[in-house]
Amino acid sequence: MKKVAVVLSGNGVFDGSEIHEATLTLYSIVKNGGSYEIFAPNIEQHHVINHITGETMPEKRNVLVESARIARGKIKDLASFKSGDYDALIFPGGFGVAKNLCSFAFDNIDCKVNKDVEKAIRDMFEQKKPIGALCISPVLLAKVLGHIELTIGHDKGTADAIRKFGATHKETNHGEVVIDKKNKIVTTPCYMLDATIAQIGDGANNLVKAIFELI
Amino acid sequence: MKKVAVVLSGNGVFDGSEIHEATLTLYSIVKNGGSYEIFAPNIEQHHVINHITGETMPEKRNVLVESARIARGKIKDLASFKSGDYDALIFPGGFGVAKNLCSFAFDNIDCKVNKDVEKAIRDMFEQKKPIGALCISPVLLAKVLGHIELTIGHDKGTADAIRKFGATHKETNHGEVVIDKKNKIVTTPCYMLDATIAQIGDGANNLVKAIFELI
Repeated sequence: MKKVAVVLSGNGVFDGSEIHEATLTLYSIVKNGGSYEIFAPNIEQHHVINHITGETMPEKRNVLVESARIARGKIKDLASFKSGDYDALIFPGGFGVAKNLCSFAFDNIDCKVNKDVEKAIRDMFEQKKPIGALCISPVLLAKVLGHIELTIGHDKGTADAIRKFGATHKETNHGEVVIDKKNKIVTTPCYMLDATIAQIGDGANNLVKAIFELI
Repeated sequence: MKKVAVVLSGNGVFDGSEIHEATLTLYSIVKNGGSYEIFAPNIEQHHVINHITGETMPEKRNVLVESARIARGKIKDLASFKSGDYDALIFPGGFGVAKNLCSFAFDNIDCKVNKDVEKAIRDMFEQKKPIGALCISPVLLAKVLGHIELTIGHDKGTADAIRKFGATHKETNHGEVVIDKKNKIVTTPCYMLDATIAQIGDGANNLVKAIFELI
């Protein structure tokens, strides 16, 4: 059975993992005959956003503890991730990727990447194991790996940043995936477009199928 | 287009809505050609559970604000729910149903039901519009409506309580639904069983299909 490590960044689109993308990624992995384990870094969230008002809330939350809500408690600290144990690595999207896993939301091309996130990406890449990224997550791969081919849909600002990292951006629409066969990188835009939840399901499913063909 | 109101109870299986059930319900509604609006009561959560340790955390969270994370901000206070605007009502599961929407987790058959939740159920029932409930949510319907036919899988304690409410319990397995045609109630056990996320998707999809046939 193909075993996938899924990395979360919190629990909620505006300060953590996008919940539909995370859930539909897990669903697609199992529906396509695979299994998953879930990881997140054990760090404080950049901030906590009230998802109704968009305002910052005066409290602190931990990325691993909040991600555990999506994982139903079955989650591991990303610091313990061993690339040898998995066939593939997938990053669902959400602002948490650009706020907690790296600082792209604030620092654009000068962003820093969490060291455990960077190590997981580099280790899988060096072992020629496929890596998938949904929504905004491809920026993480572009920052760490540079010369890869990927998509974030058709947001010009983000595509420009991706090119400055040395990566090639290909425009895509709902449910489409870009497969960089040479580097074993699969990406899909999901909520980087104004999508329905059914289109998110299509994107996640197409991404997982493409990943499984690269294993 | 069939329009469904979905009622959430927070964001996380142990103190709110079960995230996979909630997400896969929304996904099934859209995949089957419907649309949804999301509601939650504007009340404080009973408590906040650390989903890794299972321990209570010393903080307060609001059911509507946390549910908004699953809804990507598009959510309404359940106090504003108008049954005339919707063709069906669905309750995903999670302990939040038994802790925030009613007090079944603490008071068993003596539980109290949130007044806006009770009104939404009664209004839809009186207008002969279908109501769906996943996982533990059927207890809510049994408490409010009494003589209906439903399932929570095969948990003896919960089934006994449901019978004491005057309802009839039918045992089910993964993905199966019980359809009470006379009362237009559809239920499925989901994570009341030791299920995979793919089985949750099957249950949610079968429930939504059955609901749509009753509209």
